[in-house]
Amino acid sequence: MNDGIIRELDSLFYPKNIAVIGASPKATGFLWGGNSFLEGAIKLNFKGKLYPVHPTAESILGLTAYKSILDIPDEVDLVIFSVPHSVVLKVMEECVEKKVKFVHLFTAGFSETGLEENISLEKQLISMAKKGGVRVIGPNCMGLYCPEGGLSWSKSMPGKIGTTGFLSQSGQLAGHFVDTGEHHGLSFSKVVSFGNSSDLKCHDFLKYLALDEKTKSIGAYLEGLKDGKAFFQTARELTRKKPLVAWKGGQTEGGSRATTSHTASIAGSQAVWQSMCKQAGIIQVHSLDEMVFTLTAFQKLPLTGGTNVAILGGAGGGSVTMTDLAEKEGLKVPRLSENSINELRTFVPLQGSSVANPLDMMVTLFDIKNFIRTMELLRDDPNIDALIFSQPVHWSHQVGGRAFLDAFIKMTTDGMKVLEKPMLVALEHTLTLDGEVVRREAFEKYHQVGIAAFPSFPMAAKVLSNLDQYKKYLDAEHAR
Amino acid sequence: MNDGIIRELDSLFYPKNIAVIGASPKATGFLWGGNSFLEGAIKLNFKGKLYPVHPTAESILGLTAYKSILDIPDEVDLVIFSVPHSVVLKVMEECVEKKVKFVHLFTAGFSETGLEENISLEKQLISMAKKGGVRVIGPNCMGLYCPEGGLSWSKSMPGKIGTTGFLSQSGQLAGHFVDTGEHHGLSFSKVVSFGNSSDLKCHDFLKYLALDEKTKSIGAYLEGLKDGKAFFQTARELTRKKPLVAWKGGQTEGGSRATTSHTASIAGSQAVWQSMCKQAGIIQVHSLDEMVFTLTAFQKLPLTGGTNVAILGGAGGGSVTMTDLAEKEGLKVPRLSENSINELRTFVPLQGSSVANPLDMMVTLFDIKNFIRTMELLRDDPNIDALIFSQPVHWSHQVGGRAFLDAFIKMTTDGMKVLEKPMLVALEHTLTLDGEVVRREAFEKYHQVGIAAFPSFPMAAKVLSNLDQYKKYLDAEHAR
Repeated sequence: MNDGIIRELDSLFYPKNIAVIGASPKATGFLWGGNSFLEGAIKLNFKGKLYPVHPTAESILGLTAYKSILDIPDEVDLVIFSVPHSVVLKVMEECVEKKVKFVHLFTAGFSETGLEENISLEKQLISMAKKGGVRVIGPNCMGLYCPEGGLSWSKSMPGKIGTTGFLSQSGQLAGHFVDTGEHHGLSFSKVVSFGNSSDLKCHDFLKYLALDEKTKSIGAYLEGLKDGKAFFQTARELTRKKPLVAWKGGQTEGGSRATTSHTASIAGSQAVWQSMCKQAGIIQVHSLDEMVFTLTAFQKLPLTGGTNVAILGGAGGGSVTMTDLAEKEGLKVPRLSENSINELRTFVPLQGSSVANPLDMMVTLFDIKNFIRTMELLRDDPNIDALIFSQPVHWSHQVGGRAFLDAFIKMTTDGMKVLEKPMLVALEHTLTLDGEVVRREAFEKYHQVGIAAFPSFPMAAKVLSNLDQYKKYLDAEHAR
Repeated sequence: MNDGIIRELDSLFYPKNIAVIGASPKATGFLWGGNSFLEGAIKLNFKGKLYPVHPTAESILGLTAYKSILDIPDEVDLVIFSVPHSVVLKVMEECVEKKVKFVHLFTAGFSETGLEENISLEKQLISMAKKGGVRVIGPNCMGLYCPEGGLSWSKSMPGKIGTTGFLSQSGQLAGHFVDTGEHHGLSFSKVVSFGNSSDLKCHDFLKYLALDEKTKSIGAYLEGLKDGKAFFQTARELTRKKPLVAWKGGQTEGGSRATTSHTASIAGSQAVWQSMCKQAGIIQVHSLDEMVFTLTAFQKLPLTGGTNVAILGGAGGGSVTMTDLAEKEGLKVPRLSENSINELRTFVPLQGSSVANPLDMMVTLFDIKNFIRTMELLRDDPNIDALIFSQPVHWSHQVGGRAFLDAFIKMTTDGMKVLEKPMLVALEHTLTLDGEVVRREAFEKYHQVGIAAFPSFPMAAKVLSNLDQYKKYLDAEHAR
């Protein structure tokens, strides 16, 4: 992969200065607008200059405002458009004259409307930019979030710099991804919402993230690719080094119709998409949560591979149904080795229990000796690759109080070290708010000690299956 | 269906008195034991006599205790065994001598252990009961919860009498079902956890619930059927009058192995199970939540049928991905009629919106006039059978406070009346606890006004698809 893209896009993610056309001296309320980008940059201590542009205002958010981009006494790297259609051509003309490097068209209402007039306006705009040497992000998108570069589209986006990259055709999902990811311990290198991607395409950004040393893993929400070949070629190269997790919008007939209204995307054949992903080593996911938890799992779990899981923490029917769920997600719940079964029977009473796997023996585990012994047996059991531990933390708290809960969490943490295989903890939502408080606290504690916790058993199973799929891909690639 | 079963099982669900063998003068802590049944009956104001049986205690939970069942100065309808294996045969002998009608074997550790000795003990026990004219529930089960009859296996089970029946091979899932169902507005006629079902079988209880006038809809968690033919015959008759919603444990290889350890069940072929369910009009579900929300939907939504849904409340990528999810659950998200689209465009601005369906126009709807007009258009749109409305109630509360949220909920309630088609509201979990508080409050308010609210969009879509499946079955049956 040639690194020209790095030189080119570096001044997009780390611009020296930013102008926002359509910033407003009035507060914008709860909707997005030009000011959101200024507020976002201020919040992230953007190091360069910020230039609001407005026909009459003298100052916006404490920054000197300019009547036109041409009045700005400086070169401008990035211009964000938040203006009505009636003026977009004129403003683009000025950007060309000013020799602006990048324009981000937040403005929407172009080809995604399906109306000839609006499609044509988008074409004119992009053609003018191309001729003038201006690269365009969008239109119809939220643009860039790069905490290291001080870029953001909202003052609520976190300042912490991380290693996760994200590319999204939807600004709403990109924002939701950042919120959810942050809540579960992800932080970000670069996030791009690129909307209609009329000039800069998904594969341009993907190439950048592939080469970007700050980015260790990449997620993507895509509705349609304007150049599928370039995307999959880039993906195939990068997945040997970094995981790429993709969620495709428009997998169904109705969904595909919706992508056209949303970002003027042709969703394409689902079968082709799936087969290309498989060939390129892209991990496919089917919800925002699956995206977030797959990416957090890459940070927290060893990539050991294998789908044979032990299941712990269920009782009776719960054990049976978790086993079904695990196997439906592509895992196997095999019988433990005879040695493990016999050893477990030395301390698990026969009545109301099962030790063959799934393990229905929760009550026995409240003695830490038994728990650690179980972890040793699973560690040494050749039939087992990983453990999913479904934890009734709310119940532990109810029956035993704070001390009991803390001991339970400590026991799990100690057990993880003994196990030496991936341990995934599932913390299901509870019926009561009290339970939810305890559950969130457990999440936080596990996060602190590096235990991978998941909001449900099926999510844990799904993510483990995703990780195994990537491991198998890497092994096959290395064996070539 | 012959009503002999009603006469026979009436004195099981409404016994004149209950003896518990293995009640204890000591508190039992957080595990189940004989006392759980006594405490459950006391909590539900059981009208008859309760007889704890214990070798030495004089009184248990304030009730006179007896040394043996033979010492009880009364006929006994129901005896609950919570005793060790060493004495089960002796106690059963006494039950036969006492001419007890029903024995519930809470005691576990029989055929489900897979051990010859224990399998043989179960056989002897059942054979002795049969010869002596005693009917048996279990072994290895929680038994009966019938709030009207004053029966329960835990003091935490609710006293409210309702119309939902539930049959479960797992006591743990039956308890979890009652808790979750209660939380979401279900109440219960009869719930049976029947474990190994060595004597009384699932189809016996199903026949009873089919004829029971107190039971309007039935759920079941099953691991294996001891008499599949009888079960499906009964189901086929009853589904013409009441919905039967079934969740099958042991659908996979590992799950099937787990059912054997749990309730000594042979899970059987998944393909056969599915085809029998289809023929018998049984609605299949795949999680406890799907069970609960399908049953609540039967109470709250009109059974109008049709899978063409309008989707409201998403934005951009959220709209696209909800559409995919809906279509994957068997629904259709069709384009609205041209008339609806044109009318919507009179008040929805072109930029950043979509009115073809999915409807991405949330911001416009904060004006109640627009919302009601939208409901009228959907009511009159021949392309649409139902509406799924995904609501960001937490966000509404954040941006507009309490008054805004209340107005939003009222708007939804008013809109439901205008729509005259099923409206399903989806309230997703939120990241913050504050959000969770608001979300739970919205759930509660919708419950009070009879709006069907669901914990996620996929759940709403799944349940609507389940209802349509039942409607289609009924229509086909009536057309015969």
